[in-house]
Amino acid sequence: MPSAFTTNMRFKFSLLAIFLEALIIVLFGIFVRYQEDQRITKDDLFLYPFFQDVHVMIFVGFGFLMTFLKKYGFSSVGINMLIAALGLQWGTLVQGFWHMKEQKIHINVKSMINADFSTATVLISFGALLGKTSPVQMLIMTILEIAIFSCNEHLVVNVLRATDTGASMTIHAFGAYFGLAAARVLYRSGLKEGHKNEKSAYHSDIFAMIGTLFLWLFWPSFNSAIAETEYLQQRAVINTYFSMAACTLTAFALSSLVEHRGKLDMVHIQNATLAGGVAIGSCADMDIYPFGAMLIGSIAGFVSVIGFKFLTPFCSSKLKIHDTCGVHNLHGLPGFLGGLASIIAAAAHVRLKGTDSPSAPMQAAALGCTIGIALVGGAITGLILKLPFLGQAPDENCYDDSVYWEVPEEETHLVGQFSDSEDHRTINVNV
Amino acid sequence: MPSAFTTNMRFKFSLLAIFLEALIIVLFGIFVRYQEDQRITKDDLFLYPFFQDVHVMIFVGFGFLMTFLKKYGFSSVGINMLIAALGLQWGTLVQGFWHMKEQKIHINVKSMINADFSTATVLISFGALLGKTSPVQMLIMTILEIAIFSCNEHLVVNVLRATDTGASMTIHAFGAYFGLAAARVLYRSGLKEGHKNEKSAYHSDIFAMIGTLFLWLFWPSFNSAIAETEYLQQRAVINTYFSMAACTLTAFALSSLVEHRGKLDMVHIQNATLAGGVAIGSCADMDIYPFGAMLIGSIAGFVSVIGFKFLTPFCSSKLKIHDTCGVHNLHGLPGFLGGLASIIAAAAHVRLKGTDSPSAPMQAAALGCTIGIALVGGAITGLILKLPFLGQAPDENCYDDSVYWEVPEEETHLVGQFSDSEDHRTINVNV
Amino acid sequence: MPSAFTTNMRFKFSLLAIFLEALIIVLFGIFVRYQEDQRITKDDLFLYPFFQDVHVMIFVGFGFLMTFLKKYGFSSVGINMLIAALGLQWGTLVQGFWHMKEQKIHINVKSMINADFSTATVLISFGALLGKTSPVQMLIMTILEIAIFSCNEHLVVNVLRATDTGASMTIHAFGAYFGLAAARVLYRSGLKEGHKNEKSAYHSDIFAMIGTLFLWLFWPSFNSAIAETEYLQQRAVINTYFSMAACTLTAFALSSLVEHRGKLDMVHIQNATLAGGVAIGSCADMDIYPFGAMLIGSIAGFVSVIGFKFLTPFCSSKLKIHDTCGVHNLHGLPGFLGGLASIIAAAAHVRLKGTDSPSAPMQAAALGCTIGIALVGGAITGLILKLPFLGQAPDENCYDDSVYWEVPEEETHLVGQFSDSEDHRTINVNV
Repeated sequence: MPSAFTTNMRFKFSLLAIFLEALIIVLFGIFVRYQEDQRITKDDLFLYPFFQDVHVMIFVGFGFLMTFLKKYGFSSVGINMLIAALGLQWGTLVQGFWHMKEQKIHINVKSMINADFSTATVLISFGALLGKTSPVQMLIMTILEIAIFSCNEHLVVNVLRATDTGASMTIHAFGAYFGLAAARVLYRSGLKEGHKNEKSAYHSDIFAMIGTLFLWLFWPSFNSAIAETEYLQQRAVINTYFSMAACTLTAFALSSLVEHRGKLDMVHIQNATLAGGVAIGSCADMDIYPFGAMLIGSIAGFVSVIGFKFLTPFCSSKLKIHDTCGVHNLHGLPGFLGGLASIIAAAAHVRLKGTDSPSAPMQAAALGCTIGIALVGGAITGLILKLPFLGQAPDENCYDDSVYWEVPEEETHLVGQFSDSEDHRTINVNV
Repeated sequence: MPSAFTTNMRFKFSLLAIFLEALIIVLFGIFVRYQEDQRITKDDLFLYPFFQDVHVMIFVGFGFLMTFLKKYGFSSVGINMLIAALGLQWGTLVQGFWHMKEQKIHINVKSMINADFSTATVLISFGALLGKTSPVQMLIMTILEIAIFSCNEHLVVNVLRATDTGASMTIHAFGAYFGLAAARVLYRSGLKEGHKNEKSAYHSDIFAMIGTLFLWLFWPSFNSAIAETEYLQQRAVINTYFSMAACTLTAFALSSLVEHRGKLDMVHIQNATLAGGVAIGSCADMDIYPFGAMLIGSIAGFVSVIGFKFLTPFCSSKLKIHDTCGVHNLHGLPGFLGGLASIIAAAAHVRLKGTDSPSAPMQAAALGCTIGIALVGGAITGLILKLPFLGQAPDENCYDDSVYWEVPEEETHLVGQFSDSEDHRTINVNV
Repeated sequence: MPSAFTTNMRFKFSLLAIFLEALIIVLFGIFVRYQEDQRITKDDLFLYPFFQDVHVMIFVGFGFLMTFLKKYGFSSVGINMLIAALGLQWGTLVQGFWHMKEQKIHINVKSMINADFSTATVLISFGALLGKTSPVQMLIMTILEIAIFSCNEHLVVNVLRATDTGASMTIHAFGAYFGLAAARVLYRSGLKEGHKNEKSAYHSDIFAMIGTLFLWLFWPSFNSAIAETEYLQQRAVINTYFSMAACTLTAFALSSLVEHRGKLDMVHIQNATLAGGVAIGSCADMDIYPFGAMLIGSIAGFVSVIGFKFLTPFCSSKLKIHDTCGVHNLHGLPGFLGGLASIIAAAAHVRLKGTDSPSAPMQAAALGCTIGIALVGGAITGLILKLPFLGQAPDENCYDDSVYWEVPEEETHLVGQFSDSEDHRTINVNV
């Protein structure tokens, strides 16, 4: 096994994680304070249920959505948790640096929501790389991606003054294109024929539906949590609710339509049903009428299934971009679509609040910047992750938890026992 | 394979789903508007956490509760999602038509709760038919049942002015008897000896407990979400909380008591523990004292286990009503019991709010109407669903996802490989 | 089979459960009333989302966390539900007896939170005994432990006037040491070499992560739900959020560090990542700065992994304390640490609210009393549970659902079929 593939993480991983945690604690000691005000009332905790919904999406939603691979559930849900736990601390710092008062970052429920949001970008990129990277690489990507994300977010929101309440652009498109660029750099030609473990099993597909459903259910909270007023918040809730419902119908319809026997494909149901939440993000609090939200959702469901069916195989074989979870179809294309919808809405002078309307050129600039910065940032991050001592698994051990995790004995035993035999009784009880 | 059993859904299903979604978008364009009022405050979003709890019940609760079948998990959680996504859009319309202002339906968080409620009726009926119908049939049932439900609800609430805060009658009894009537019409004599797939597996029973627990936990939100005042809302929360707890003790006790070796039966634990939430519904906001709620819950747990043990086999063999999930025991009997309790409470002049008390005859009329309309509506719907081109699976393929879903290859491979062999190595790795 | 091991629960279990439920209903009829006040407003329901988060932790969090055993999932999630449903009713009573007004217990959302809290102690103790006791024993332990807990809580909060907002001491340390003392008394020397069923399977470890994540996510609600003001509540939320995140990094790092090939261990990830929530409990609403919370969390993650790796085997082999779920490492040590942190914080005059600061000696007294009462109470309870007619399983049937539950046939069939064969095809499809 070449040294580039030493997967023993004992010291690299643990020392890096402890170093990062120690560094963050020191930085918190210097910079971070409670939003200290004894006049805090129930109103200040009003956002707490919205925060909790987002929190569930990050850890249960993203985590379980990725458990669809038959032998990679520990990593999906575990490394997802690791990334999010590191990311929310780091995100609090790097987002806070843009908004310091008297050299201090003051934290409250809203800053916790934003910290959780920042981790979503990394979790999306993680989806593109799933099964092909080491936990050490993911710690590094978390640090780099959230730093770049917070710069782009500052540019979009505070410099360009674009609107992106539900973050179609700044989170979804950003995370997807960042991850795809990194996946391109980390492309493994050895996997171009596919991999025996890159498959779901019956139960793992049901585990993944836990992720799908909690994402689906709490997306209205995600898109409305940081809306400026309660009035806009209610509108974002309603638009997202109906966009997701419409998207679900379209995704089911298309899934059946593109398969020659008309069967439904779990990959589409797990992912494309969520595209409506992504695509409505930028326009979530605009006065686009409920039917407008449903139109956007329907188109997103359509585009997402088409992407899974035709674009993902094309990207993998022709563009050398292998996207394990299909994040391009769930976050990339629908995120782009969301940006586009916000440009059109702005051009059509759709009201945001009162007579106020966002500016079409600024929305377009936001979309362009986001994708450009994501692609460049992701490519550079990919190059850094390629450093040979970061513990990547060799091709044959991809999509396999047992490289980085203690896996229950029976299974290993059985798989070993049976997969060595060449007769027709060969089974993989992992099913 | 006779034409009545062509299960290829490619065009029927997708075109019907797209047509329905397009139709709904047009109707939303004409009729549906945000509840537009810039003075919306935090108080108007007060119900949002209640909405989210109900939302989780509909998609995760009902969806996972039905994953108990060993080979029908994709359909349970997937078609549940499809029905609910269609139903909440359609429910917004048909419920809204009864309450238009200036020819428009104005939507807010409360209307979203009611839309979710309307889907529950179909999901309950789906439970009775689980494994025996096609997705096409379920789309049609969703449209028909929610339309009929909204008429009955209007009759009960606005004409009879009966009280049914937690909807024991209008949702639970309605959904159950509607589904049972449809199941009677769709009875398959070929399944009367049972079916090899109509069984749980160890893991699928645990998946089902995810559904049970989220239903159990959020039932206080379900029963209190649309209570008229915060005072009544708190009472509904408390009554439901204690009714469910008492019901759980009784259901465990009875489950052990009716089995000759005293073992617990997962079917009872998954279902009968929830009967207390159903039965307390109609009286949830009445001044019945906490011990009254516990009495109702205890009786519901008792009745539900007895129903599973003795009534379900009887209905199946003698009445030709095959109820896959036993919705009669979870929603039918306890819903009826809830209606009965509300009649008794009304007759005993239990206060609802202040000196106000519901009327016993009106409660009785509500219960009677609901069951009558459900039975007739379900029977007619069953006849429509019997139309031969709707893609029902043949008897031997019932309770099997692979008819309508792409199922992971290994499994199919293995099952095929092993189930054909006649020796003692025959295994079903679906376990 | 000796009479001590008659596991047939038919009459003992059901009659005991029915008797307890009947007794509780009578006591509720005499003592329990709604907090009756028609001026209840939205503010009074402000805690409801916090209650729901705690509720999810108790039933889904604790329940699924224990499903890691490959053949004990029904009991883990089912008996967890039974204990909690009985415990919350009983807890309402025994906690209420300390605060009666005009001979009545007045219940509201806050009393429901406290009732749920009281059940947590039993569920923690249940973790130490998991797989080795009968449902009958658990009903008895629920009654005894919650009664003793409520006395200790009264002593700590009202007599010693110690602060313990997130209950590191009164719930976590109490539940753990109570369970460990009971486990010591109930020690089975027949299991000292381990047991073939005391293992996880690949899927059961993923089920357990459902529990881990919902505990992890809602712990800020647990630690802040009963804080005295919104100001302290926000602080408890923030401290817990960051303590958990820091703990997670440390737990991952240590898990990899203590294993000679650097692999991660699911037991650590499932449990030690939660230690930060336990340890921050007593100080949750104190002004310890966010970095202080992170320090406490980091230390807790460290201590917890070390406990699992070195202390649990030591306790089992040398002290004859067999702790199935390792509750000592998740609740015992971190709970003790939390108490210690509160003593240090009090000694350092950390402000709690305004100029008010807790008293170090009283915090120390609270910690001592709690552990002492838990150990004595647990030992006595263990002695009572040892009574020979309570239906304990014989050693060979430990950690096996099929003793107390109907288990799906195929599985039993297969296990029997294959485990009897001696050739290399022997498999356990339970994997």
